[in-house]
Amino acid sequence: MTKKINWLILLSLLPLLTMAQGKKSFTLDDLLPGGSTYSQMQPRNIHTTWWGNQCIEVDLEECREINPKDGSKKTLFTLEQLNQWLGADKDKPAVRSCYNIEFPDGEQPHVATIISGKELPDGSRTQVYAVVDFTTGKRVATVECPADASLQDLAASSKYLAYVRQHNLYVATADGKNMAVSTDGSNDLVYGEAVHRNEFGITKGTFWSPDGQQLAFYRMDQSMVPDYPQVDITTRIATTYPDKYPMAGEAMHKVTVGVFSPASGKTVWLQAGDPTDRYFTNITWSPDSRKVYMIELNRDQNHAELVRYDAATGTKEAVIYEENHPKYVEPMHGLLFLPWDDSKFIYQSQRDGFNHLYLFDLSQTTEGNEQKGADGATYREYVKATQLTSGKWVVKDVVGFSTKEKSLLFCSNEIHPLQSNIYKVRVKDGKRTLMDNGEGVHNASLNADGSLLLDRFSSPTVARSVNLTHTKNGKTCNVLTAEDPWKDYNVPEISSGSIKAADGVTDLYYRMVKPVDFDPTKKYPTVIYVYGGPHAHNVDASRNYLTRGWEIYMAQKGYLIFVLDNRGSEHRGLAFENVTFRHLGEEEMKDQMEGVKFLKSLPYVDADRMGVHGWSYGGFMTTNLMLTYPDVFKVGVAGGPVVDWQYYEVMYGERYMDRPQDNPEGYKNSGLRPKAGNLKGKLQIIIGYNDPVCVPQHSLSFLRACIDAGTHPDFFVYPGDEHNMMGTDRIHLHERITQYFEDYLK
Amino acid sequence: MTKKINWLILLSLLPLLTMAQGKKSFTLDDLLPGGSTYSQMQPRNIHTTWWGNQCIEVDLEECREINPKDGSKKTLFTLEQLNQWLGADKDKPAVRSCYNIEFPDGEQPHVATIISGKELPDGSRTQVYAVVDFTTGKRVATVECPADASLQDLAASSKYLAYVRQHNLYVATADGKNMAVSTDGSNDLVYGEAVHRNEFGITKGTFWSPDGQQLAFYRMDQSMVPDYPQVDITTRIATTYPDKYPMAGEAMHKVTVGVFSPASGKTVWLQAGDPTDRYFTNITWSPDSRKVYMIELNRDQNHAELVRYDAATGTKEAVIYEENHPKYVEPMHGLLFLPWDDSKFIYQSQRDGFNHLYLFDLSQTTEGNEQKGADGATYREYVKATQLTSGKWVVKDVVGFSTKEKSLLFCSNEIHPLQSNIYKVRVKDGKRTLMDNGEGVHNASLNADGSLLLDRFSSPTVARSVNLTHTKNGKTCNVLTAEDPWKDYNVPEISSGSIKAADGVTDLYYRMVKPVDFDPTKKYPTVIYVYGGPHAHNVDASRNYLTRGWEIYMAQKGYLIFVLDNRGSEHRGLAFENVTFRHLGEEEMKDQMEGVKFLKSLPYVDADRMGVHGWSYGGFMTTNLMLTYPDVFKVGVAGGPVVDWQYYEVMYGERYMDRPQDNPEGYKNSGLRPKAGNLKGKLQIIIGYNDPVCVPQHSLSFLRACIDAGTHPDFFVYPGDEHNMMGTDRIHLHERITQYFEDYLK
Repeated sequence: MTKKINWLILLSLLPLLTMAQGKKSFTLDDLLPGGSTYSQMQPRNIHTTWWGNQCIEVDLEECREINPKDGSKKTLFTLEQLNQWLGADKDKPAVRSCYNIEFPDGEQPHVATIISGKELPDGSRTQVYAVVDFTTGKRVATVECPADASLQDLAASSKYLAYVRQHNLYVATADGKNMAVSTDGSNDLVYGEAVHRNEFGITKGTFWSPDGQQLAFYRMDQSMVPDYPQVDITTRIATTYPDKYPMAGEAMHKVTVGVFSPASGKTVWLQAGDPTDRYFTNITWSPDSRKVYMIELNRDQNHAELVRYDAATGTKEAVIYEENHPKYVEPMHGLLFLPWDDSKFIYQSQRDGFNHLYLFDLSQTTEGNEQKGADGATYREYVKATQLTSGKWVVKDVVGFSTKEKSLLFCSNEIHPLQSNIYKVRVKDGKRTLMDNGEGVHNASLNADGSLLLDRFSSPTVARSVNLTHTKNGKTCNVLTAEDPWKDYNVPEISSGSIKAADGVTDLYYRMVKPVDFDPTKKYPTVIYVYGGPHAHNVDASRNYLTRGWEIYMAQKGYLIFVLDNRGSEHRGLAFENVTFRHLGEEEMKDQMEGVKFLKSLPYVDADRMGVHGWSYGGFMTTNLMLTYPDVFKVGVAGGPVVDWQYYEVMYGERYMDRPQDNPEGYKNSGLRPKAGNLKGKLQIIIGYNDPVCVPQHSLSFLRACIDAGTHPDFFVYPGDEHNMMGTDRIHLHERITQYFEDYLK
Repeated sequence: MTKKINWLILLSLLPLLTMAQGKKSFTLDDLLPGGSTYSQMQPRNIHTTWWGNQCIEVDLEECREINPKDGSKKTLFTLEQLNQWLGADKDKPAVRSCYNIEFPDGEQPHVATIISGKELPDGSRTQVYAVVDFTTGKRVATVECPADASLQDLAASSKYLAYVRQHNLYVATADGKNMAVSTDGSNDLVYGEAVHRNEFGITKGTFWSPDGQQLAFYRMDQSMVPDYPQVDITTRIATTYPDKYPMAGEAMHKVTVGVFSPASGKTVWLQAGDPTDRYFTNITWSPDSRKVYMIELNRDQNHAELVRYDAATGTKEAVIYEENHPKYVEPMHGLLFLPWDDSKFIYQSQRDGFNHLYLFDLSQTTEGNEQKGADGATYREYVKATQLTSGKWVVKDVVGFSTKEKSLLFCSNEIHPLQSNIYKVRVKDGKRTLMDNGEGVHNASLNADGSLLLDRFSSPTVARSVNLTHTKNGKTCNVLTAEDPWKDYNVPEISSGSIKAADGVTDLYYRMVKPVDFDPTKKYPTVIYVYGGPHAHNVDASRNYLTRGWEIYMAQKGYLIFVLDNRGSEHRGLAFENVTFRHLGEEEMKDQMEGVKFLKSLPYVDADRMGVHGWSYGGFMTTNLMLTYPDVFKVGVAGGPVVDWQYYEVMYGERYMDRPQDNPEGYKNSGLRPKAGNLKGKLQIIIGYNDPVCVPQHSLSFLRACIDAGTHPDFFVYPGDEHNMMGTDRIHLHERITQYFEDYLK
């Protein structure tokens, strides 16, 4: 039922853009986020939001309704009007753009925004959530919180505002009350914040019930977790600041979940038992606001349980579903209840080897017998469950429901591993309909009832296209087709293709950026850009195959750039990803060396001038490749690398490596220090001096090992920067990376 | 009365060693301390000590008496004997060499050494000071202290042993007692340790009275001094360790001085008044053990008082002497009482502009009227004082007294600014006699009564010569003349000479190391090695003009090396040194640029390939030169640099710069961050990651400034190393430094 399109292979034979002499050249500022000219070099875009079922374009000056029939636009209100309604002076606007407004109350003509409130004795100002009726200009709700409140979470239905202040959780109300949910918060004990270092799909720490009357929240005791000593050099005398960092195999924080009722002022704790060495994730409210579901994992991450609690008492009511895997399970998504049936929800699982959708029916309990999934996975369903989608492709994103059609919209790479296309699936029978043009990479969002789809897409040949599509019949209307912003520039030839992985059977996809003014009779210095880790990909069928600006810059300097998504990367199924289990780096490098073999087969690649660059996991890969294949790679730049997985954190680290005490060989073999003496080429390590992700101990311990082994890596730090360099530092960084290849690979 | 020898200038015209093709080349290991072959490439040496008036050679295997008439040697005892006397088993020696023995009891046949004592429950062993009669083999004294005792200080006369343990001070006795002098010691409050960061000549924190019955000691409250956050990356999870670091202009520790009597077990405190912002230095006992003298400075360091205290009560008795200087005074030496007259002592002062000797007579008090010294210095003598030496040269070192002749022996550079020669001065009338050959650089020590002088010297043409000289008549006997250990090596031409400073009048001395196989028709890349700060010099008339091994290595690689001691460096008088006051770097750079001017006048110096390298103050100079003269220097390597004097410590920093709040312009202009945008050439900053002297904040803040200014320094750190790299790290470091010049200056 899906049409396989081979245009990717066709396209790889044809340069995307022919050589164009006399055209303009890029600067790093043109090409990198943080560059002064970056935004004007991007394809034009529009910002949109939904007001109930209506699509709204927002910009600096006004909000406009977009007509889904013809894409025509009509002003809803202006920034000036909004400021008038908020009672602001002309020269002292309360809001400076319409970008951050919301329509919180469904179809009601209400707009919400955050403005500054009253001045406090210390000169700071409160933050105010102001909701205005834009037909009357009248304020319909005001919720105020302190100047230093963070992580605000507004319950639209009740206008209760949860927020965090100095690790304590509070709720403010529209009638001016401020309730403390906790009072003993500290750096050791945090409330209302995202936990488990944002793994398992966790992005926040507060969860309002649908009726807005109850607040589920995380409480995390991290008193047993040591601080990594981060140093702030900007104080008069340098100081350390505490940064709790649970390293693999070491003591881990303990999480509990509370439910606070603003009406009673009381908190009930979910009776999940001893939280030691357990993960509580994907908190979901039942549609009737009476139950809380969460997924519970053991520390080994090979067993997950979906459990239901009674919100009023905290009592554990039932285990709904269980999943085991000999390597790991990784539930990333909460429950999606059907809008038309409170007894059914959609659940995502990789139990058949690919991420797919399952329909669970709470009204039909079952025995819960153990059943077999793929590759040793087992599971138990305690209510009736039906697989909605299947196949050797993955559901990448659930967009939402179409209530009228009783269907679900999602994105998958069914058409091609590099693509992301929008499908509609009928919940009743799993009937699937492609909702887009079947090309490129699409992102989508839905209006309130799911009748209208906003489809943003790009492909190797389409810079950006935004369309409004009727879910029912697929009728579509173009809202924006962006011009190619680079048409006057000498853009290098960018192509994509596939090679076989080191296992001989798996297809791996690559991107190649040829030097500008490419001459196939010449031999070019070649740089492999690599990431290689899970939960990421570097090549897809979006604009320019996802080429990073730096690659364009390097192509302009005369380098050929090659990027290959090895096994271990995302969107290709669980076996593709978990082949790296307990020996990170090994299979990934084998695949990258297949890339090298392919490159060496190309007459225009200079095998004597090969370099490699990557950041984070890619820094690990870069360093590892330099040390493992010292005769292949002459120059490497490794940013924020992992050097020893025992210095990485518990959640991510132990998922892929188990604990150091349970996998000593794996930790030893994947560590880079023992290979420090192998270094032959030029390797520069670059880190943010305040990196809280790959803490400096990684790189510093590697330098120590190299010094002891008598080898000579280079090193640079960005003081004050964390895991990634932002803004102008990003430009500086890429000047530096480029110069290193210029100095030593040319 | 002194003979000026112009051989330095003569020598500079003649290469020290002619080019010798076919000879061996050096490795870094040959040339640098820490190198595996370094010690065998050094001129032969002997280790000596004194047993009363007798000179003793010590080595691995035995102690020998040296006959001062002919240099002949006779075994005194062997290591094997010593171990027998100490009751050690044959295969478990108590002492492994004779290098660290002492003869503590004058002419008595007693030898003292430290051995391991009894095993404690935790497996550690106590430390034992064992004194043995080497005529009978009998133990004559045993003093025991804990395994973790440090800073041991033995009073020979009483065999009381002072030591420090976990910041508390203790005294152990030969009859097995251990007394706690303090009990509240902590990182915030330290006892018995050197204070004021070892400035003002301070090297220790305990001072036994001559009779060994009383112990003066420092107590330092540093609770108000913040810790610089040093990070240890060798722990499982990196940790910080506290390192009290008082930065210029910030809160400073408070020092008090106690006197402990082991007999009474009581401590008396010297009543010196409020210790806030004051320095107490150069603690000296009166010969009768009844008085304690110390020199007291204000925080501004422009006023010093020599004060006497009663040791029994702590009462302040009298101010003996006062000195003021509009820039700074810097007393570095305690009082030297004449062995034949307890009422007189020798005092050193720079009040006439050069460090000279003064004889103070406590028996003759005076009015103490203000008198004028050089360049605005003033002083008040409250007892009669007579200047013993004078002239435009400096007393570098006092060797000791000849009791019989009632004279003092000292070293000075009277003959030539680069030399150090031994003189005898008669205390009665200041009659001065040269005691050595008038060449090179001499170091000396005296026997108990000062009748015999051990004179060690080297010169540009003499690798090492050790002689015993009779103080009375200058009759001398050679003990060792070392062969040139480099005679089979291709040693570069090393020369010295002088140029005028930027002031147009002052002579500055340089060393030049020419490339091996020098060809005057070629043009060579040239590297300036620089230190440039106070209390140091890089050029003198010792072996090879004090050439550092790395210079030889670089000459071998084809570089010309130039080293110039600019104004601000040591041994040239106060005005030469303090011209830099309140604007460090400025005059020093002007002088170095005179060196550049000179270099550019040489046909074989390639002015387009000039580099600069230095460490610490020299790192400050290197970075400053790169930023101030970006068109002159192409490549620089700056080690452990000062970047901003406000990050340096109070004592040294404020002496030369005053407090930041009192000299904002000076701090601004001497700081390197504002010049970060000037960087054009290649500059590599290298630091010890745990540098407690020039803390990492210097270099890191400079990197930040460069990143912000869009310039590109390079950077490297040695994790675990402090201000200097030692051992094999030193080899690694110099490989790295060399490679940088090879990569970018060649």
